[in-house]
Amino acid sequence: MRDDGLLEVLEQVARGAVAPEDALARCRLAPVEDMLTGLTLDAHRAVRTGLGEVVFAQGKSDAQLRTAMARLAETGPVLATRVDAGQGRLLEQAFPGGCFWPEARLFTVGRPLPLDPPWPARGEVLVLSAGAADRATALEAFGTMCFFGLDAGFVADVGVAGLHRLKPHLPALDAARLIVAVAGMEGALPAAVAGLVRCPVLAVPTSVGYGVGAGGRAALQTMLCSCVPGVAVLNIDNGFGAGAFAAKYLRR
Amino acid sequence: MRDDGLLEVLEQVARGAVAPEDALARCRLAPVEDMLTGLTLDAHRAVRTGLGEVVFAQGKSDAQLRTAMARLAETGPVLATRVDAGQGRLLEQAFPGGCFWPEARLFTVGRPLPLDPPWPARGEVLVLSAGAADRATALEAFGTMCFFGLDAGFVADVGVAGLHRLKPHLPALDAARLIVAVAGMEGALPAAVAGLVRCPVLAVPTSVGYGVGAGGRAALQTMLCSCVPGVAVLNIDNGFGAGAFAAKYLRR
Amino acid sequence: MRDDGLLEVLEQVARGAVAPEDALARCRLAPVEDMLTGLTLDAHRAVRTGLGEVVFAQGKSDAQLRTAMARLAETGPVLATRVDAGQGRLLEQAFPGGCFWPEARLFTVGRPLPLDPPWPARGEVLVLSAGAADRATALEAFGTMCFFGLDAGFVADVGVAGLHRLKPHLPALDAARLIVAVAGMEGALPAAVAGLVRCPVLAVPTSVGYGVGAGGRAALQTMLCSCVPGVAVLNIDNGFGAGAFAAKYLRR
Amino acid sequence: MRDDGLLEVLEQVARGAVAPEDALARCRLAPVEDMLTGLTLDAHRAVRTGLGEVVFAQGKSDAQLRTAMARLAETGPVLATRVDAGQGRLLEQAFPGGCFWPEARLFTVGRPLPLDPPWPARGEVLVLSAGAADRATALEAFGTMCFFGLDAGFVADVGVAGLHRLKPHLPALDAARLIVAVAGMEGALPAAVAGLVRCPVLAVPTSVGYGVGAGGRAALQTMLCSCVPGVAVLNIDNGFGAGAFAAKYLRR
Amino acid sequence: MRDDGLLEVLEQVARGAVAPEDALARCRLAPVEDMLTGLTLDAHRAVRTGLGEVVFAQGKSDAQLRTAMARLAETGPVLATRVDAGQGRLLEQAFPGGCFWPEARLFTVGRPLPLDPPWPARGEVLVLSAGAADRATALEAFGTMCFFGLDAGFVADVGVAGLHRLKPHLPALDAARLIVAVAGMEGALPAAVAGLVRCPVLAVPTSVGYGVGAGGRAALQTMLCSCVPGVAVLNIDNGFGAGAFAAKYLRR
Amino acid sequence: MRDDGLLEVLEQVARGAVAPEDALARCRLAPVEDMLTGLTLDAHRAVRTGLGEVVFAQGKSDAQLRTAMARLAETGPVLATRVDAGQGRLLEQAFPGGCFWPEARLFTVGRPLPLDPPWPARGEVLVLSAGAADRATALEAFGTMCFFGLDAGFVADVGVAGLHRLKPHLPALDAARLIVAVAGMEGALPAAVAGLVRCPVLAVPTSVGYGVGAGGRAALQTMLCSCVPGVAVLNIDNGFGAGAFAAKYLRR
Amino acid sequence: MRDDGLLEVLEQVARGAVAPEDALARCRLAPVEDMLTGLTLDAHRAVRTGLGEVVFAQGKSDAQLRTAMARLAETGPVLATRVDAGQGRLLEQAFPGGCFWPEARLFTVGRPLPLDPPWPARGEVLVLSAGAADRATALEAFGTMCFFGLDAGFVADVGVAGLHRLKPHLPALDAARLIVAVAGMEGALPAAVAGLVRCPVLAVPTSVGYGVGAGGRAALQTMLCSCVPGVAVLNIDNGFGAGAFAAKYLRR
Amino acid sequence: MRDDGLLEVLEQVARGAVAPEDALARCRLAPVEDMLTGLTLDAHRAVRTGLGEVVFAQGKSDAQLRTAMARLAETGPVLATRVDAGQGRLLEQAFPGGCFWPEARLFTVGRPLPLDPPWPARGEVLVLSAGAADRATALEAFGTMCFFGLDAGFVADVGVAGLHRLKPHLPALDAARLIVAVAGMEGALPAAVAGLVRCPVLAVPTSVGYGVGAGGRAALQTMLCSCVPGVAVLNIDNGFGAGAFAAKYLRR
Repeated sequence: MRDDGLLEVLEQVARGAVAPEDALARCRLAPVEDMLTGLTLDAHRAVRTGLGEVVFAQGKSDAQLRTAMARLAETGPVLATRVDAGQGRLLEQAFPGGCFWPEARLFTVGRPLPLDPPWPARGEVLVLSAGAADRATALEAFGTMCFFGLDAGFVADVGVAGLHRLKPHLPALDAARLIVAVAGMEGALPAAVAGLVRCPVLAVPTSVGYGVGAGGRAALQTMLCSCVPGVAVLNIDNGFGAGAFAAKYLRR
Repeated sequence: MRDDGLLEVLEQVARGAVAPEDALARCRLAPVEDMLTGLTLDAHRAVRTGLGEVVFAQGKSDAQLRTAMARLAETGPVLATRVDAGQGRLLEQAFPGGCFWPEARLFTVGRPLPLDPPWPARGEVLVLSAGAADRATALEAFGTMCFFGLDAGFVADVGVAGLHRLKPHLPALDAARLIVAVAGMEGALPAAVAGLVRCPVLAVPTSVGYGVGAGGRAALQTMLCSCVPGVAVLNIDNGFGAGAFAAKYLRR
Repeated sequence: MRDDGLLEVLEQVARGAVAPEDALARCRLAPVEDMLTGLTLDAHRAVRTGLGEVVFAQGKSDAQLRTAMARLAETGPVLATRVDAGQGRLLEQAFPGGCFWPEARLFTVGRPLPLDPPWPARGEVLVLSAGAADRATALEAFGTMCFFGLDAGFVADVGVAGLHRLKPHLPALDAARLIVAVAGMEGALPAAVAGLVRCPVLAVPTSVGYGVGAGGRAALQTMLCSCVPGVAVLNIDNGFGAGAFAAKYLRR
Repeated sequence: MRDDGLLEVLEQVARGAVAPEDALARCRLAPVEDMLTGLTLDAHRAVRTGLGEVVFAQGKSDAQLRTAMARLAETGPVLATRVDAGQGRLLEQAFPGGCFWPEARLFTVGRPLPLDPPWPARGEVLVLSAGAADRATALEAFGTMCFFGLDAGFVADVGVAGLHRLKPHLPALDAARLIVAVAGMEGALPAAVAGLVRCPVLAVPTSVGYGVGAGGRAALQTMLCSCVPGVAVLNIDNGFGAGAFAAKYLRR
Repeated sequence: MRDDGLLEVLEQVARGAVAPEDALARCRLAPVEDMLTGLTLDAHRAVRTGLGEVVFAQGKSDAQLRTAMARLAETGPVLATRVDAGQGRLLEQAFPGGCFWPEARLFTVGRPLPLDPPWPARGEVLVLSAGAADRATALEAFGTMCFFGLDAGFVADVGVAGLHRLKPHLPALDAARLIVAVAGMEGALPAAVAGLVRCPVLAVPTSVGYGVGAGGRAALQTMLCSCVPGVAVLNIDNGFGAGAFAAKYLRR
Repeated sequence: MRDDGLLEVLEQVARGAVAPEDALARCRLAPVEDMLTGLTLDAHRAVRTGLGEVVFAQGKSDAQLRTAMARLAETGPVLATRVDAGQGRLLEQAFPGGCFWPEARLFTVGRPLPLDPPWPARGEVLVLSAGAADRATALEAFGTMCFFGLDAGFVADVGVAGLHRLKPHLPALDAARLIVAVAGMEGALPAAVAGLVRCPVLAVPTSVGYGVGAGGRAALQTMLCSCVPGVAVLNIDNGFGAGAFAAKYLRR
Repeated sequence: MRDDGLLEVLEQVARGAVAPEDALARCRLAPVEDMLTGLTLDAHRAVRTGLGEVVFAQGKSDAQLRTAMARLAETGPVLATRVDAGQGRLLEQAFPGGCFWPEARLFTVGRPLPLDPPWPARGEVLVLSAGAADRATALEAFGTMCFFGLDAGFVADVGVAGLHRLKPHLPALDAARLIVAVAGMEGALPAAVAGLVRCPVLAVPTSVGYGVGAGGRAALQTMLCSCVPGVAVLNIDNGFGAGAFAAKYLRR
Repeated sequence: MRDDGLLEVLEQVARGAVAPEDALARCRLAPVEDMLTGLTLDAHRAVRTGLGEVVFAQGKSDAQLRTAMARLAETGPVLATRVDAGQGRLLEQAFPGGCFWPEARLFTVGRPLPLDPPWPARGEVLVLSAGAADRATALEAFGTMCFFGLDAGFVADVGVAGLHRLKPHLPALDAARLIVAVAGMEGALPAAVAGLVRCPVLAVPTSVGYGVGAGGRAALQTMLCSCVPGVAVLNIDNGFGAGAFAAKYLRR
């Protein structure tokens, strides 16, 4: 309710067309209505700008998942994350043209995913995976980027102990505009990489590990404490978040 | 043992009718007895005031659960919470007229539950559920309110990312005397809603989430730290507690 | 920007009055503008409804504090919380008619506070303080309620070990519509009181304690875990929050 | 090696009977040997004093468990704790005269356990169980006491919400020399009981609970923070520890 | 309100002497009144049984502290714990015959404390202090025992690294009915001692330490996890609690 | 040592010019030497690329701080962060042309800082500060950006409760390529802003808060758990880190 | 790129043989290339020095595991750790001559493991296992040492409660150059042993335990806090790490 | 009490020279006496082997500290750690020939410390300090080694960001038999160094840092989680522990 709207209501009250108490209720609700109107349109905008909307499958019942996917699929391509094997089978039946990537736990409708290697090892954004067990989260990031149409690359098995394996990828590292480094245990990869490159690094800790490293909190803390400038951190196992940040970063 | 009771004992001792050591024991136990008498009657009062008594099923053996339900069912309607699928089947056999609501994990005897949607989207107390995975806890709150006979409403899928979906519910939000907001992950819903409404908001964190959000502690902390006045918080996943608070609030 | 607004822009574009790229920018910003408009009016409403606005003094520089108070004091009574001794002296100089309550760490302009006992021991809302060291937080709650014009009472020194001191206050407990129980260490007071009364109880843990009780986390957890129905919890030391919840609760 | 032993060695060195380097080695090892000798005899003493030795079954392989039981059974009665169903069956086959108590997770050889209720509700030491789900730990404490030959009683379902059920047990509470209170969730039972009785109270938190109460840490902290004097605390779920403490306490 | 009381009310209602609504209010309040009556008398009993009441000075204002001490001093000897230097001076002025023990942070009225060494090194209860920095807490325990009139002993500097210093105290250890072991850092003393003696051991962790040992949590956990039977644990730095447990134990 | 280098060594060994053990040592050290050579040059490159080097003053002695600044000032402009008042005075004396910004805790040599407001409210990167107490960290970010020569803006007091104050800044928000949102307590600002804008958001939690919000962990967790895509997180109070990330982002 | 390399490039630029921008790219990448060259050779050196490389099986897919083993097996003996039963069967099929040790969760190719007892009870390095449930981790350490060709011994069941069982092993303890003590629960074994021997002790906490001991954090903290000098600590359950430390220690 | 001792007692009982109950007491105490005898001699041995004994000054009163130093100084050189400025002055007065090293917080009697640089940059054991703020802990380690007479070196300012500064120290790194790496914040130095050298590395986290790095827990966890083999960890800030481990390591 803009100021003129308020004026209008007051005039209606003045000429007896609206009872004061009804006017009061309208005045009270109007600003909230304005705000939610804003949010509603903003949601539409998200669709229009082409990022599409994303479904977090974990914790959803079969019916909830299917309904959410179907509703969104009417307006464009859809991405679902954290899709387990059972949910994947369900969605494959419900959306015959859909695409299920079990290792990355992604399912898409309306836009295919690069299910099989080899994947490009360079791009505007480059995803690095430290260990074998960090691969699922790293592929979630990579697959999300592909869904959003980014020019993305993927390089595996370059944990701190295997940092030398980055050597053939040096030109790719130097050319990237953003690097996503995914690592569990002590989580030292992002800082090590940030010391090598000029572009910023997104750090994604994973829940892989044991002892004090179990659950990913040690990796998370290492990444947050990094003394090497140019590192920002995502939630544990949040490969999707890194992909979405990259999309906002590269699409401006 | 009131003062006159003490006097009586002393007089009995004086005239030799009671040995001093027996008197001592009585004096020592009397106040505790008074206290527990108080507690006993207070428990009866709980039944009399119509709230009924409630059974927490989780961790109970089949025999314990059946016995607890049967004992209480003699005096009026009974509610059991945290009833898993196996316990639900057991209770359905034991109490053929009972009512099992698997999603809300509730079982009642002597008072039916609104098992199937549509549920009213307005009421003196309104339960808001943020995400699909928060629904079980939100329905536990809603079902508890129904058991206690409250005028309760239920609105789903209005997490922070979907806050605009609240728009058609604005009059209901404005009319409510209490709102219960259920959310996991970052737990921002209660504060967002508290900024929109005039009535107080009960915040219920859920254990839904991953990474630092796993287990519900992050949501709990966000809710406790909220700068928006008018928010109080329940334990993680404690939908029943929100329902019971609402009952005490609205039945005065 | 409502739908008709969108239509209008499109028509302007159609007749060449607005360049498409300018229209795009307006379309993109419009919903956000709507939302923030809503928030702006909503802030005004907070003032109109009489709750006034509140300043959290802790961490503010002297200049920030004085400015914030002065700005709000133009539109009505103001409350500042967490005002330490130095800030209190500063504000007393800046606002000669103001009222500083050191123990409760409150400062008001335009509405006096009940600085000296005796305070009423009954009211629609009753604040209970467990131990001597919990008094500051309990008085923050009580003073906040007074600022908001509530019918509030205050009873001190009724921790679990001194619960019997509640006896003369029984009629007040029975008459209250809301009780706020403030306690540190093991935090058992709210549950004990909730077992005695029919109205709901707000539990406020305090940071008073030592060993595993230091900082208030043990009290907080006890209060959240309470099995007695009808208890909701505020942040540690958040007496203001309990007062604000009470205001929203009792003023509907 | 006592002082005279040291002297003897030196004399042997003096008269050439022992090479200095051999003497050095003996001198170095002697005190450690003394200490371990002490420990060895002390272990024997544990057997002689009649407490018998105890096997912690959890985490043991079948072979390890059977061997440990067999070795100890040669010298007297044996108690195994934390015996799961599979281990229980294994031990029943290996020790046909043994006694398996599944709910208490105990197995004994050479001394029967009171497998079936009713159990005495009074004794020198009295075990109180708060909720249905705390019963396993409470029975572990009670069964351990029976194994050690104590005069023990057991009372169930007297959690804070059911404290009034203690009323018929008042004389037993007053007569006990030690009370063991077992509780999960908010863990308030021990302090409540300690306020009623003259004897000390051992508090045993259980891992039963949910939300911030999950795992037993909230109950543990409440018990440690208790303001009521006369409470000491065992590890979470450590019913055996309470039984062993009682044995040392009552057998002096 | 006993059953006959309830009957009486009902009869009064029956003959019109009491209006039903007044009867209802009385019925509702009566059980709570009974309970609080019980608690009141129980508090008196605590005084009568000679344990006296205890004031926790930490966090109390000067006025609160002086008032609390004065009120209790009317009925018998009083003990205040956690009395800092400033509070001690204040109390010495207020209670000229009082006794202030700075190292133990205790102040008594009506019963002197053994301020100066040598202290007896044996007794029914024996307090062992691990390191120099644990001495304050250990003396709090020892002083509390002296206040309660126990036959208590004190032995210092027998931490794990100095365990051999226990040797001359062996007969005292063997004769004790209860041992209190106070230790910080890794907290291994209680278990080591429990392996040497037949009586139970109360373990008191202290907040002395650094790194992961800072604050006392590591010591607390070690003590709770002890595999040696016969150990129960108090809160960090809770020397008073150990003294009070001993008093309840030894005075039965 | 490249392969040809290795060959050369082997040839020298073959013709007896180098002893095998010396060759072994050289072979062993060579690769490490290569690596550290790389690091050395890389450090030089950091200087050449114009980012300059940065000194973290906290925890440095006066001599350490002065020496570090002097060494770097020889090669170009220098920035020191976390400079407290005493260190600031010291550096002002040592570097008369230097620039000390107390509120931002920054000191520079060779490049001035914008010490006084007004600061631009728009730029390629925009820093938003939630509350008054978050300003120091936000200015650390803003000042760092200015030192690195970025086109940066600063907007204060737009916490969740004051989000409507963003309205006049909408065009600036829409035009920014990166937004840094700094907030303490519940830390909800970054997610709220990320829902309004198209560019990515760096979230910086601050240690401002009390109760469960004290120290900044609650804010950190909220930011990590955010469901709104496009948010990455820095360490608590790490304003410098956000500035450095922005520099790497915008200078590519 | 050494200094002469840099010079060469500059000369090439000077004589027009290389375009400046190409030279810039080479200069930028050269130091990183040097560093990664170093790392590459360093990795080779690890193989040459005979320690071989090690595969961490946990979290690897079957394909990943098989590939990693096959690649390394080409250059020498390989060790895989954390091999579960299923992975063991897989590897046994893939590497018929391999050696699977289920209890130690180790698999080797090219070097057999001492699968069956009796194992030597003395050696340059001696592994002590506290309880039955700590054996898997202790054998991981022992097996790792055997793989690396160390002179290693193994002694089981010498937890604090069974410390006297060390007596026959005194000469072995005295002769060892390094001792590895593996323990869960309260983790007191390493400090107890360090008090007996002259050589340093590596402490390995295990995740065995319950209550506050669950997960191994209590044992870890105890070991870190140990007052007995000469103890250093590995991650929870990290038997391999202790074996590798021993290899580096003893092979110098 | 060896077996023959036991026999002797029994014979005395047999011939009536000793009453059975006295014999019983002797039998019960004998093994404990043996053990403590062992410990006593073992303590003496510590002195004889030349390591001397060490006083932890933190938390000691002036009197306690002076007494402890004086007692030990009678038998040889003494080292006190964690000596603050005030304690240092006190000790300088009490022991005029003593040596106080404020930065390392060490005080010695009977053996001088290398108070002033330059210190040797190589030795059998080499201490590396990451940042300026880690120097105090690193010097505590270095000074302890000097006190124990080790061949120790010290290299400062080689944190991960300054790793290239290690280059001139390569031969020293290669020659060392043990390296101690001291670091705060993200604690990555020890793993980085362990990847460069053949000898094992002791990692000492420091409490230096802010945000999630405050207190040293993040550095501790990183060090424990390190994937690079050959790293063992000490408590936070425990420089002395590293020095003592080195002494045991190098003096065998």
